[in-house]
Amino acid sequence: MHHFEELSAAFATRFAKRHFPPHPSSLYDPADYFLGLGGKRIRPVLCLMGNELFAPIEEDAWQMAIAVELFHNFTLVHDDIMDRAPLRRGKPTVHEKYGSSTAILAGDVIMVVGYEYISRIGSPHLRRILQLYNQTAIHVCEGQQLDMEFESREKVSMDEYLHMIGLKTSVLLAASLQIGSILGGAGLGNQDKIYQFGKNLGLAFQIQDDYLDCYGDAAKFGKKVGGDILAGKKTFLLVKTLDVATAVQRRRIKELETAPADEKIAGMLELFHHCGVDAWVQELKEQYRQAAWQSLEDIAVLNSRKEPLRQLTDMLLQRDY
Amino acid sequence: MHHFEELSAAFATRFAKRHFPPHPSSLYDPADYFLGLGGKRIRPVLCLMGNELFAPIEEDAWQMAIAVELFHNFTLVHDDIMDRAPLRRGKPTVHEKYGSSTAILAGDVIMVVGYEYISRIGSPHLRRILQLYNQTAIHVCEGQQLDMEFESREKVSMDEYLHMIGLKTSVLLAASLQIGSILGGAGLGNQDKIYQFGKNLGLAFQIQDDYLDCYGDAAKFGKKVGGDILAGKKTFLLVKTLDVATAVQRRRIKELETAPADEKIAGMLELFHHCGVDAWVQELKEQYRQAAWQSLEDIAVLNSRKEPLRQLTDMLLQRDY
Repeated sequence: MHHFEELSAAFATRFAKRHFPPHPSSLYDPADYFLGLGGKRIRPVLCLMGNELFAPIEEDAWQMAIAVELFHNFTLVHDDIMDRAPLRRGKPTVHEKYGSSTAILAGDVIMVVGYEYISRIGSPHLRRILQLYNQTAIHVCEGQQLDMEFESREKVSMDEYLHMIGLKTSVLLAASLQIGSILGGAGLGNQDKIYQFGKNLGLAFQIQDDYLDCYGDAAKFGKKVGGDILAGKKTFLLVKTLDVATAVQRRRIKELETAPADEKIAGMLELFHHCGVDAWVQELKEQYRQAAWQSLEDIAVLNSRKEPLRQLTDMLLQRDY
Repeated sequence: MHHFEELSAAFATRFAKRHFPPHPSSLYDPADYFLGLGGKRIRPVLCLMGNELFAPIEEDAWQMAIAVELFHNFTLVHDDIMDRAPLRRGKPTVHEKYGSSTAILAGDVIMVVGYEYISRIGSPHLRRILQLYNQTAIHVCEGQQLDMEFESREKVSMDEYLHMIGLKTSVLLAASLQIGSILGGAGLGNQDKIYQFGKNLGLAFQIQDDYLDCYGDAAKFGKKVGGDILAGKKTFLLVKTLDVATAVQRRRIKELETAPADEKIAGMLELFHHCGVDAWVQELKEQYRQAAWQSLEDIAVLNSRKEPLRQLTDMLLQRDY
């Protein structure tokens, strides 16, 4: 059994090659540039771990690990255009560096190359894996659309928000695990359990991410605390606050929208506290963490095989940075 | 054996349903809107004809016909964004009607739904078809990138231009035919022949398209004659003219760039004639038409089975409108 660091390093070595032909370089250099920006490569490692939970890691799992990472990068390239993001991991985004048209096409071609990796697997489960990958891709597109829609909406319910986050971020984690498990020969029951594990893990992680943006240690977190508040971004904390706030508190939120940065952050944190949202959000994360843990427990394989996924869960969900 | 009109009508019936879930409607209504704008549906019919050349049309061929049409529509949605086109078939483009972000996502999701149709085929050739579809998708992206690149380049050779047109428009026609033929049980030799037929047919058609933009009957053609000249678009005629023009003629082209519309069209048509490009381009089309015809002849099936493809070739390449 291999742990996150080992699999992550092994994947990085496999992934660190050019996935595209040389020409036309005006299309493929931008695509290659983006993949070179790096990332935690969590999704491909989940695919490998999902595989190793049931069997020794096989070649097809490596191919699918690359496919899911390419899919993830495709979504990032296109999301960056939609969000008009100038930077990604501290470097210019593709549309910023090469223009929007090239960024659209570079995203498209990264996605198709993902499907090329799928077409190379020798598994008799090709059709099932292709279907799961497609369904997941569709969900991720839906999640991004809902995210954009919610940004401009006054009122979003917690159920709607959870649904959107599930689509936008959790299903790809869940599907990566399930694809690995299919290749490892998992039965339908175990496939469902590992999918649920990934879905809940993803939600807990995103809830924590929103929490840390407000209450994290800026030095360890590497981002300015309160960034989401300043951007007026809908987060678990804001959605919940808008849900429970009194009329007076709502007016205060309106006022703060145009306040200076420091006042806006301090004011919103105070509101979160008055509404009990800081405690609530930690509890919500804990619920999803436990649900993830339970799904993992329920998978019918030798307990010791689950150790890497348990460690990964702890690593992802107990970080205080 | 079925002819173009029959297959086109039958395909239209199958295609005229909603290919997407109802929600989120902000994503799927735009995608559905675009598919409803119509089109000649040549690619899906080619898939069906490629199938029927070798065997009775089977269910998988209908699924793949839908997949190639969805792929084609995905490229149109994204190309329209890149070209800043306000209209498509006389109606507002997706980005014009719903915004660029939604248009990017709608294109993405149309593409993924294409892959969903592929995943539904029962054929043992799924892997081979997926590979051909991916390779074609990559070529089409490359073609679009080269097209954008060439627009801003001073000098493009005829070889480069032919290569770009081949990627951007011909390979999808060729692959549609080949996919149908694979499903029909064609051997590798016949598959190659039908692919070459489609590739040459596509090139001849595009050459004719450029010709008709200059010399077509405006009333029948439905477009203003000289539209490409006014837009300064690189066409077979312009690329060839730039290749053979004298220094004096080049200066004249430069002058005409800023001339009033009617003068610009008349001046460029005169130049084309002086450079012999009007005759040359007809000859070029004839070369590709004959190459297509020969590839079709060389396919080893009963001669009478080829009749619908012969008629389609005549229909596509002998139009004077």
